[in-house]
Amino acid sequence: MNYGWKTERKFDIIAIGRACIDLNAVEYNRPMEETQTFSKYVGGSPANIVIGASKLGLRTGFIGKISNDQHGRFIEKYMRDMGIDTSNMVVDTEGHKTGLAFTEIKSPNECSILMYRENVADLYLTPAEINEDYLKETKILLVSGTALSRSPSREAVLRAMSLAKKNEVKIVFELDYRPYSWASADETGIYYSAVAEQSDVVIGTRDEYDVLENVIGGRNEDTTNYLFRHTPSIIVIKHGVDGSYAFTKAGATFRGHAYPSNVLKTFGAGDSYASAFLYALIHNKDLETALKYASASAAIVVSKHSSSEAMPTVDEIERIVNVNV
Amino acid sequence: MNYGWKTERKFDIIAIGRACIDLNAVEYNRPMEETQTFSKYVGGSPANIVIGASKLGLRTGFIGKISNDQHGRFIEKYMRDMGIDTSNMVVDTEGHKTGLAFTEIKSPNECSILMYRENVADLYLTPAEINEDYLKETKILLVSGTALSRSPSREAVLRAMSLAKKNEVKIVFELDYRPYSWASADETGIYYSAVAEQSDVVIGTRDEYDVLENVIGGRNEDTTNYLFRHTPSIIVIKHGVDGSYAFTKAGATFRGHAYPSNVLKTFGAGDSYASAFLYALIHNKDLETALKYASASAAIVVSKHSSSEAMPTVDEIERIVNVNV
Amino acid sequence: MNYGWKTERKFDIIAIGRACIDLNAVEYNRPMEETQTFSKYVGGSPANIVIGASKLGLRTGFIGKISNDQHGRFIEKYMRDMGIDTSNMVVDTEGHKTGLAFTEIKSPNECSILMYRENVADLYLTPAEINEDYLKETKILLVSGTALSRSPSREAVLRAMSLAKKNEVKIVFELDYRPYSWASADETGIYYSAVAEQSDVVIGTRDEYDVLENVIGGRNEDTTNYLFRHTPSIIVIKHGVDGSYAFTKAGATFRGHAYPSNVLKTFGAGDSYASAFLYALIHNKDLETALKYASASAAIVVSKHSSSEAMPTVDEIERIVNVNV
Amino acid sequence: MNYGWKTERKFDIIAIGRACIDLNAVEYNRPMEETQTFSKYVGGSPANIVIGASKLGLRTGFIGKISNDQHGRFIEKYMRDMGIDTSNMVVDTEGHKTGLAFTEIKSPNECSILMYRENVADLYLTPAEINEDYLKETKILLVSGTALSRSPSREAVLRAMSLAKKNEVKIVFELDYRPYSWASADETGIYYSAVAEQSDVVIGTRDEYDVLENVIGGRNEDTTNYLFRHTPSIIVIKHGVDGSYAFTKAGATFRGHAYPSNVLKTFGAGDSYASAFLYALIHNKDLETALKYASASAAIVVSKHSSSEAMPTVDEIERIVNVNV
Repeated sequence: MNYGWKTERKFDIIAIGRACIDLNAVEYNRPMEETQTFSKYVGGSPANIVIGASKLGLRTGFIGKISNDQHGRFIEKYMRDMGIDTSNMVVDTEGHKTGLAFTEIKSPNECSILMYRENVADLYLTPAEINEDYLKETKILLVSGTALSRSPSREAVLRAMSLAKKNEVKIVFELDYRPYSWASADETGIYYSAVAEQSDVVIGTRDEYDVLENVIGGRNEDTTNYLFRHTPSIIVIKHGVDGSYAFTKAGATFRGHAYPSNVLKTFGAGDSYASAFLYALIHNKDLETALKYASASAAIVVSKHSSSEAMPTVDEIERIVNVNV
Repeated sequence: MNYGWKTERKFDIIAIGRACIDLNAVEYNRPMEETQTFSKYVGGSPANIVIGASKLGLRTGFIGKISNDQHGRFIEKYMRDMGIDTSNMVVDTEGHKTGLAFTEIKSPNECSILMYRENVADLYLTPAEINEDYLKETKILLVSGTALSRSPSREAVLRAMSLAKKNEVKIVFELDYRPYSWASADETGIYYSAVAEQSDVVIGTRDEYDVLENVIGGRNEDTTNYLFRHTPSIIVIKHGVDGSYAFTKAGATFRGHAYPSNVLKTFGAGDSYASAFLYALIHNKDLETALKYASASAAIVVSKHSSSEAMPTVDEIERIVNVNV
Repeated sequence: MNYGWKTERKFDIIAIGRACIDLNAVEYNRPMEETQTFSKYVGGSPANIVIGASKLGLRTGFIGKISNDQHGRFIEKYMRDMGIDTSNMVVDTEGHKTGLAFTEIKSPNECSILMYRENVADLYLTPAEINEDYLKETKILLVSGTALSRSPSREAVLRAMSLAKKNEVKIVFELDYRPYSWASADETGIYYSAVAEQSDVVIGTRDEYDVLENVIGGRNEDTTNYLFRHTPSIIVIKHGVDGSYAFTKAGATFRGHAYPSNVLKTFGAGDSYASAFLYALIHNKDLETALKYASASAAIVVSKHSSSEAMPTVDEIERIVNVNV
Repeated sequence: MNYGWKTERKFDIIAIGRACIDLNAVEYNRPMEETQTFSKYVGGSPANIVIGASKLGLRTGFIGKISNDQHGRFIEKYMRDMGIDTSNMVVDTEGHKTGLAFTEIKSPNECSILMYRENVADLYLTPAEINEDYLKETKILLVSGTALSRSPSREAVLRAMSLAKKNEVKIVFELDYRPYSWASADETGIYYSAVAEQSDVVIGTRDEYDVLENVIGGRNEDTTNYLFRHTPSIIVIKHGVDGSYAFTKAGATFRGHAYPSNVLKTFGAGDSYASAFLYALIHNKDLETALKYASASAAIVVSKHSSSEAMPTVDEIERIVNVNV
């Protein structure tokens, strides 16, 4: 395959959106009320995806706003140490805090998250903080759905997309739908569909596409009929343990299967999936292979305690892919 | 000319946006501090345009939210009495008030407006209040720029546009830029350009296009180069006393000249211009004629005390056009 | 009587609170929907009271915040022209507007007001804008209840009261309860009771005292038992057409009767009542006489179109008092 | 000494205000950026004080609002397990979160706190949630200054104080000043002074009294002159390592000295001080002894990792007091 990447560009992926803190219960398999200790990790879907991509050897950057405190500084340093370019991570000057996610793991099937997302720094990124020269240097702009949930972050993303299109940067839209971030389902549908229509690749779960289309129990066929009338050329729809599908505008369909895993928790599955899928695309692997890499990466992360730290290497992924041929 | 209107549709124009109250100084040619009495009129750009269009014999409707008080009831009744369909004017249930504009006429060249636009009802129209069946019945959806300035009105307009496109309704975008309505120039540019790119006809002053393009001293050539790459097929750019231009995607340019007028104030010129321009379009008149009708209509309104009440008839417009051949 | 005024002081009364605009329907005895024209007057309870007091010859000043626009300038000039010291009227710098009251007079018994009170300038007076040297110069600080409804105006009033007490200024509390200004009845009761307990004179309707005490159908005896345990020495309770009562801490009770009037509307009755009552107190008239002056003043204002302009002279009041002995 | 406690009452102390979560860096003596793990404790000044008081054997209760999530449930259960009556802890129904304090211990002299206090549940306690029958059952109502920083919590405290006075409950005001909670220093001074004037016992640091009096470098003499003109009968002013003073309205002054301690951090010193001071008062010990108990309690807590868990027993306190005679 040849996806036509602009090979001369400095970055493979620049992500835009939130970088936050996960506080994971150290004592798990119990309600959080009984947890005494929490471990701190970088979190947030687009941050996790570039961390994963960077660990796979891709050249990555990040556009986002971080708090002017110990949590913000921890995030920036961790990402920089992971090889991600953080030159466009803006430090908030208005006292906004880093978003927090306390994770509770009662059992592999019962995970929940207690979110602190009130006036968080990431949602205060402004259009004026988007740098066209930076965007020119990347093959892919990865847009995270949650960054659309509030102004001015919403407008910053719209501005970044407009500049990306102007500079022939491919836009990958990871739906990353978090209901608590949004004012209403109507608003979500309006911005999700507007952004998806202008993206080259869209990745999400079946439930997330339902939100985008403002339907209940939507069908993949309707989704692809709708979106392929617009910009997208690849659409990925995930069905949890039933695997996932990649559709192309040309009419091809590929199915990926979930790999067996010793599941500890479900957090981080989607982010690791996306990072490995994009790794495969950047390396011009075919979509069938890309789905395998994505599923393998997800299988690894759900067996571990964190989302970001647990991101696998290429070797770890390929071992699973090759074993399960 | 044949603009390809869906002739079987019930309405020529349905406008979406604000319907407000103008309080015009009865004693003019003096500062408002010295005014003792104010006359009450319906105001707001999209309301004025449908009032004007209705007076010209077009079949019109209005989508908007009005306050649940004497001002809201006055507006609805006035518009209904003017022959406008008000079945989709929603009454606010959360205590929001009607927007007010106190007009001050110091001299024909020194007019100013004292606005009351804090949490006004019109900006609380929601996407759920947009009715697809209603939109199906019109040839044109007229979108007013100010309705994009705040959520949820912004999303209501985006929803209405999405439904309009789905149902082959032509979208006319009147820029109607009011700086005090907007959070920032960046935000304005982002939504103005997104909406203009998806509209069939765009109408505004040169200054308003500068806001849309986020430039200073923009040129018409750049504007048309940019927008004709997208949906628009007709672009109208107004240059005040220097007249106005209509551009077509096919490459034609038409110039309209301002007619002499005994100017009392400048308010309402743009709204009367738009209503007559759309009247000519609906009647498949060529663009040169449409510009004449528009300019004549504006010349009449600026010589009178109100914006809505002063809207001319076809006879009045044609008298000016014919006298000034 | 001798109420022990500090006779050497420059001002008789300094009021703190709102000065607004009344827009009175010119065409009355009809619903406002049918009104075409509105007359503009200065309004707002404490502004009306000092306008009335000034017309009666008292030396008055005003502490408040006004909008930086034509309405704010009109208010300041009108009050200055009426002889009120406006040196402590602060001009808002954050874009807040003047409060508006559109009055509707359907019949003498059916009057209503359409209020514009969203983020109005008067409620943005801050504690730092209270000037101790100014307060030292007055006999009475008149506190209007509505100024307590929101921060920072609430704290500005509390600061003014604290400085008044420190400088032996008598505090007169006019309850002036407007439900739409308050977040909850609980909050109203808490601040009304706290302020009343620290005031020297309290004036209000029976209904307003019920709000203060957080009761329904309260009795005058309970009110006076409660408040005379604290600072107040005079309590005035108004019962509409049934007249009003003045109670003293020493145990005396006086009753005032309403005078016959050709009622046009009920607005402004309370403000004219307060200004004449305070006039009588400043002139050391006994409470029986003060009640007569107050009732006569109210009878005059309810027969006229405005609240502020209609404030009577001493002659007009005394004519009624003397005729109705 | 006999402080005249209502001995028949069920509770010694009911506190009103915030109960939150402390997340204490497990790895200390380093910047928080380098911390990997956090331990979870109940925190918040009034919660800590009743936890300390309960550990000393006092009968305590708590009035406050907690989040409807794992953190809120943890707090309620922990306090209940400590023997505190939690029947008047109200569960928030509007999605507000528990306040968080991440503590950073760089060295014993360099401690800082990263606060999450955006729209926290404790500040949404309303006046309607204050139960008079509950307040009737206590000797002391402990008011925490931070609970005054925002509406409606502010009004809930004012209501509780009003009911306390009506029912002869002694009010102890712990100033507990947290600048980030307040809109302005002016506002702080206004409510701190209003509440202090109505309290029986006031406890704070010299800096906190400066805030109350809106002065810089205030003197204890001025503070006591001012407050003893009002309700307070005991005023405690703390000067850090220089010890603390207790003043009585009758004119007596007592000085307490800080005990030597192996200081780990400074958090929690004030809360443990207050709980032991009140323990001594409830047991009718003289003020000199009360200051010793308070200082000993503080010396113990600053040598330990948490604030709430570390609260000492009577034995531990008396051992220090007796050793350091």
